[in-house]
Amino acid sequence: MAEYLAPLRDMAFVLHEIAGLERIAQLPGCEEASADVVEAILAEAARFAGEVLSPLNRVGDRTGARCHDGAVAMPPGFGEAYRQFAAGGWNGLGCDAAYGGQGLPGLVSAAVQEMWKSANMAFSLCSMLTLGAVEALERFGSAEQKATYLPKLIVGRWTGTMNITEPQAGSDLGAIRSRAEPQADGSYRLFGQKIFISYGEHDLAENIIHLVLARLPDAPPGVRGLSLFLVPKFLVAADGTLGARNDLRCVSLEHKLGIHASPTAVMSFGDDGGATGHLVGQANAGLEAMFVMMNAARFAVGLEGLGLSERAYQQALAHAKERVQGREIGVSAAAVPIVRHPDVRRMLMSMKSRVEAMRALAYFVAAAQDAATRHPDAAERQASQAFVDLMVPVVKGWFTENAVDIASLGIQVHGGAGYIEETGAAQHLRDARITTIYEGTTGIQAGDLLGRKIARDGGAALGEVCAQMRETLAELERQAGEDFAAIHGAFGRGIAALEESAAFVVAHAAQDGRGVAVGAVPLLHLVGIVSGGWMMARAALAARRKIDAGSADSFLAGKIVTARFYADHVLAAAPGLAYTVTRGSAGALALGEEQF
Amino acid sequence: MAEYLAPLRDMAFVLHEIAGLERIAQLPGCEEASADVVEAILAEAARFAGEVLSPLNRVGDRTGARCHDGAVAMPPGFGEAYRQFAAGGWNGLGCDAAYGGQGLPGLVSAAVQEMWKSANMAFSLCSMLTLGAVEALERFGSAEQKATYLPKLIVGRWTGTMNITEPQAGSDLGAIRSRAEPQADGSYRLFGQKIFISYGEHDLAENIIHLVLARLPDAPPGVRGLSLFLVPKFLVAADGTLGARNDLRCVSLEHKLGIHASPTAVMSFGDDGGATGHLVGQANAGLEAMFVMMNAARFAVGLEGLGLSERAYQQALAHAKERVQGREIGVSAAAVPIVRHPDVRRMLMSMKSRVEAMRALAYFVAAAQDAATRHPDAAERQASQAFVDLMVPVVKGWFTENAVDIASLGIQVHGGAGYIEETGAAQHLRDARITTIYEGTTGIQAGDLLGRKIARDGGAALGEVCAQMRETLAELERQAGEDFAAIHGAFGRGIAALEESAAFVVAHAAQDGRGVAVGAVPLLHLVGIVSGGWMMARAALAARRKIDAGSADSFLAGKIVTARFYADHVLAAAPGLAYTVTRGSAGALALGEEQF
Repeated sequence: MAEYLAPLRDMAFVLHEIAGLERIAQLPGCEEASADVVEAILAEAARFAGEVLSPLNRVGDRTGARCHDGAVAMPPGFGEAYRQFAAGGWNGLGCDAAYGGQGLPGLVSAAVQEMWKSANMAFSLCSMLTLGAVEALERFGSAEQKATYLPKLIVGRWTGTMNITEPQAGSDLGAIRSRAEPQADGSYRLFGQKIFISYGEHDLAENIIHLVLARLPDAPPGVRGLSLFLVPKFLVAADGTLGARNDLRCVSLEHKLGIHASPTAVMSFGDDGGATGHLVGQANAGLEAMFVMMNAARFAVGLEGLGLSERAYQQALAHAKERVQGREIGVSAAAVPIVRHPDVRRMLMSMKSRVEAMRALAYFVAAAQDAATRHPDAAERQASQAFVDLMVPVVKGWFTENAVDIASLGIQVHGGAGYIEETGAAQHLRDARITTIYEGTTGIQAGDLLGRKIARDGGAALGEVCAQMRETLAELERQAGEDFAAIHGAFGRGIAALEESAAFVVAHAAQDGRGVAVGAVPLLHLVGIVSGGWMMARAALAARRKIDAGSADSFLAGKIVTARFYADHVLAAAPGLAYTVTRGSAGALALGEEQF
Repeated sequence: MAEYLAPLRDMAFVLHEIAGLERIAQLPGCEEASADVVEAILAEAARFAGEVLSPLNRVGDRTGARCHDGAVAMPPGFGEAYRQFAAGGWNGLGCDAAYGGQGLPGLVSAAVQEMWKSANMAFSLCSMLTLGAVEALERFGSAEQKATYLPKLIVGRWTGTMNITEPQAGSDLGAIRSRAEPQADGSYRLFGQKIFISYGEHDLAENIIHLVLARLPDAPPGVRGLSLFLVPKFLVAADGTLGARNDLRCVSLEHKLGIHASPTAVMSFGDDGGATGHLVGQANAGLEAMFVMMNAARFAVGLEGLGLSERAYQQALAHAKERVQGREIGVSAAAVPIVRHPDVRRMLMSMKSRVEAMRALAYFVAAAQDAATRHPDAAERQASQAFVDLMVPVVKGWFTENAVDIASLGIQVHGGAGYIEETGAAQHLRDARITTIYEGTTGIQAGDLLGRKIARDGGAALGEVCAQMRETLAELERQAGEDFAAIHGAFGRGIAALEESAAFVVAHAAQDGRGVAVGAVPLLHLVGIVSGGWMMARAALAARRKIDAGSADSFLAGKIVTARFYADHVLAAAPGLAYTVTRGSAGALALGEEQF
């Protein structure tokens, strides 16, 4: 397997031409993110990803994390790589400088995180979970908690986890049973079992800070009775030094389809009298804190989908250029590299165009998140936040569904060799397959999109996006040439499909919640496909502007071709999805359970 | 993991109502296939599949076939199961009674094979390969070869293989280099290395009969210089007794993503002076013989797609009925089994409806194959054969692409548990992932469909199918009710999309072979989706006839609902695919290789 090479040129194109890095660098607190600085950071991250993390991807898969007597040994090389990762300041790249972070915009952090995920997704999960804990503590922790925990988490000396799932409580958080008993000293004793805890135990860092959802004795039932607790592996003294081992342990690690190097732990709290924990935020307000962690994590899992897709694409492309097999259609000559065969082309373009659409959308959303946090104008902040809220389930859901399909296509490009584990293509599919499940399944994302993000505001936020899309559409119409005509045609049909679907959902959500919910995942795909088409159109327009200004760079011409492929092969599905969204409920709900 | 339960009722419905078992049983040589006999056979096969083969599926995955010093040990239990399989006469169910087969129609054999593939796909491959060898020998073997080899292969005392692929010759058979040197006694000595040889070595049977594609010294280059040789593991005396070990060996087994129990061998022939082989059929006519084996194998791999989809569906359905999680939308009450959640419904219906469409199409094609072979009227035979030829790449390509998606959905229905190997859902995806690759990738199937099966006859065979579809469409129009209106609407759009695409392909194939080829796989999906819709429509109409005749059986009502779901959720994609088929070439082919 060839090592990962960060697509720096594509990344820079998106940062500057689509996500508006220059504009973001003018936001208060983002001033350091000049084009030069960002370029240097990305180049250094690319080196670390390609030379340090990528070579560990396969050994991580083969060896896996191993649990023995409650201790977890990480695969060879992971410890040293993690030390370098932390020492390089990579963990806190986007974190608050006041606590030791680099304070860079989320936009830059998104590009860098994409690299970690491409290079070694299992490794990258450790940092992703830690950053989720950081975000929850920044928002809801006490001043003391922040001072004690944030600096160590941000530099990566300690790592964090999210302890949510229990055997009977997966998507349904209201079923959580873990409990916390208040102690006289203001601390709590926690009891319960949690499952699917990523990096719940490992040997990379000095301490592990578990954020645990549990119930107080007097808590109301359901999700309104959940509180969030900070439960460290080793107790932490007021001066930050480590004390005794807390009463929690890793019972076992799961034997998973993929991400073998990411230790997925069954965690037991309080087997020996109770694990000492501290309340984070208000009692019974754990859900809100959890959503903060989860929204960050959802966006990050979307980046996993992007990163894995890029990796699978790189590997398939390299194989297709190298593998000589078969003659070219219409040309009677020697065997050619399979990249010349039209169907291999189609597969590669399908991968490439969706990777580019996802990257553009991810960075565009990351930039909006920066604006939502830092823009001086409150109306701008609000509008940006509405856009981010709308798009997070799309980034999570659509990207990861794409990743499964793209990783599978990557195997297909390899033919029989793709099915052999040593080739490495299969690992990407095995790794990608978790991304549509954890941090909320695609169904959960789609329900969130349809219910909270579209129906609840009467389609206002989505309508605003559609209006912006129509501005891009008008710009497309003014361009000459077949490629732009094709992009314009398919994108126009896509917007219309989206508007029709949104109107249907808004009109029927209240009276027919079950029926409308049947169309949630098709709607999520539709929003993803059309939003991706929007990004591709913007990329093509940006390329056209530079070509019109005199550039003969074939990279720019490629952007237009790729946008056209996306239009004819990906956007083409939009009307069919709208058909399903608006008519699909009756057939889905009519069967009695005994008829299955 | 629950064991497989053969869907006998669904199978019987398709056999009788769609594939026309009664009509097939009237064909010469099929007289034994009375409804009663077929029912008894299927019941017994269901027992064997569920009680013997299914329980070995997981151990086969975990243990895998293992190679040591050229000998391959099969997983525990496989040897005894194979002995029972052979003793039960299952291997030769559809084979010629003159050589010890049961002589049953291919239609009945297809239903039984579906069960083996659902229960234990890795196990079933052994018989599939043997039957391919049987078919090649029946068609091309000498009288002596038939007498010596067919009886033992048909009863399963010996097994067969197809030795085609070489490291440099995957999809491109013309690149095969293995060679055969004629000997004075009329035999040949074979030399060369073959890869990806399923059941190339194992400990299930007394002998293994390898059918090997190789070149004679004076052979022309390319595919016209391939000859087929029979190369037994143990030499066979004229009286059928086994002699010395032949000069061939298993070098190693591949470490694969799935079907771990199926030994995928690297085979070396002639390391020690040459492996003794016998020419099958004419010199330099190996390709034709290989196509006979391959067409049978392609249909059988389509059945693997069906079988794995059924298995994945059964497991997901069982989980969805059992797993209690979350409240029902619009109903404020206790947690419910997840089968009540609309999106889980949608996933299950998507799996179920496609499984039913595939089963109906598979059995319909199998019946056509019986008619093509046995019908007394030559015109009927010819028309049936044209239909079979058209549909084999669809059964192979579309079913297996569906299987990958359906097995992936099966994981999704399980949520986090689906990602844990012990659950068993992941195995189905790992096993399914090979089916779009071997026996010709989806791209190869699609190229065959577009080029040889549609463009070559100017769309005549497909046009005939469309005309029959339009008859069904007219029948749909005469039915009352919303369900039939929905089925009629989507099916009509589907036929139109198919006709438009076929006309485009026929019009442009000669002048723009490369461009048209970009649409090959989308076209394959389109033909599959619409043909499946045709079958679902026929099922709904058959159910309606029985309901109109007084039946209140909810099974029949379910057929109509399932057809409607298929229309709104699967057929809905047809126009978008036609869009891609007719416009998708420019964007796919325009990039220079350096622009990727």
